Amino acid sequence: MNPDSFFNCTDSERAAFEAGIKLGSLFHQFIGIPVSKSNVSDVERLIETCLKIQPFVEDIKVRIKGDLKSKKNEFDYDVLSPEMLDVRLKIKYKNVKVCARLQFIEELDYPLMFVERMEAKK
Amino acid sequence: MNPDSFFNCTDSERAAFEAGIKLGSLFHQFIGIPVSKSNVSDVERLIETCLKIQPFVEDIKVRIKGDLKSKKNEFDYDVLSPEMLDVRLKIKYKNVKVCARLQFIEELDYPLMFVERMEAKK
Amino acid sequence: MNPDSFFNCTDSERAAFEAGIKLGSLFHQFIGIPVSKSNVSDVERLIETCLKIQPFVEDIKVRIKGDLKSKKNEFDYDVLSPEMLDVRLKIKYKNVKVCARLQFIEELDYPLMFVERMEAKK
Amino acid sequence: MNPDSFFNCTDSERAAFEAGIKLGSLFHQFIGIPVSKSNVSDVERLIETCLKIQPFVEDIKVRIKGDLKSKKNEFDYDVLSPEMLDVRLKIKYKNVKVCARLQFIEELDYPLMFVERMEAKK
Repeated sequence: MNPDSFFNCTDSERAAFEAGIKLGSLFHQFIGIPVSKSNVSDVERLIETCLKIQPFVEDIKVRIKGDLKSKKNEFDYDVLSPEMLDVRLKIKYKNVKVCARLQFIEELDYPLMFVERMEAKK
Repeated sequence: MNPDSFFNCTDSERAAFEAGIKLGSLFHQFIGIPVSKSNVSDVERLIETCLKIQPFVEDIKVRIKGDLKSKKNEFDYDVLSPEMLDVRLKIKYKNVKVCARLQFIEELDYPLMFVERMEAKK
Repeated sequence: MNPDSFFNCTDSERAAFEAGIKLGSLFHQFIGIPVSKSNVSDVERLIETCLKIQPFVEDIKVRIKGDLKSKKNEFDYDVLSPEMLDVRLKIKYKNVKVCARLQFIEELDYPLMFVERMEAKK
Repeated sequence: MNPDSFFNCTDSERAAFEAGIKLGSLFHQFIGIPVSKSNVSDVERLIETCLKIQPFVEDIKVRIKGDLKSKKNEFDYDVLSPEMLDVRLKIKYKNVKVCARLQFIEELDYPLMFVERMEAKK
């Protein structure tokens, strides 16, 4: 049985839908993870590898921004918060590519998930 | 500043993207919550109210399925797992409506998120 | 088989351990949930009912603090953050009671989980 | 201001409380993460580094068990479930050490968090 048979939409709507799933999942799965200067690049890589095994993910770059604490005492660490995440995601479904992004937008005071670009191969 | 200005896609792609965000978020936020016969309908209602305050959500119905334990001893409870969730979501962005669903599909052995129907008003 | 047979510690250490489990679980399960003025008391009640079905929880009071947004536009909502949670938990294991708390402490700039009081009945 | 001033319990109760916090946090933070054969050891290491930056964690070993899928098609991956986790945690608070564990116990059909051993230095 092919999952595609459950869908009633165009390929580009499907691609956009899949991009949304990945960004929404990522946000709610990883917010709250303990991070510090010593493990921040591990966390970035881990989020990337967790996303890459999911359907239709062609590429993903995760950057954790912000002034992370280095561990001077027992309580010096942060937890991953919405402001810190900057994610660039590329989804490919059939002939359609979606470049989507999760980024905290100062003017909106909001971590926005948006579609930067749709590409359809002819 | 209007969030729409960050998007480069059609209204129907946008609507599909937003539907994906909501289902992906819901899945990863609520999986793991302790549930039992005594609180299952509270959990269903709560997930619905949490989704309804998010952008473009027109309607949502959450059903938690499965043979939940009733509390006979201290350890008798379950945690919400992917198989248990059945969610029907309606997203409205401008003139486009998306009916999307999260449902565990036995044949796929997989909790599938899919687009049941797109509707565009002229 | 009795879960108690896996433990090698005193009843009061066990009670303190169980209190820690519940506060740690609660924190990481519910951080990130969408909240607004319209659903905040639902979220408080839900967290309470989810905790009450877990082992050894005698009582729990959850309060979500902070200046929550009321929904004026599509993007007006918050997600539950560590600063907002104030939780008072009572654990009872055999003859020992633990009153524990999760509270954001300004001076520490940290959501602290701590033991307010141990009570042992003779 | 010292966090210790908020506590009213013995050092060994405190140590047990901290062990509980870590195991409860870990469980609810990481359940649901996408895992496959290709990233499972990365996920184990990541959970370890996230725990090691938290207060009083002296050592931690995480093992993810189970028959993980290798990626043959788009949908071949698993999400981390309670049965898969085996965690050994060592907490040190002042002169007390706690060896705690999270392990799925077949006979209980339950992922049990328990105290394997308390050690107090004189």
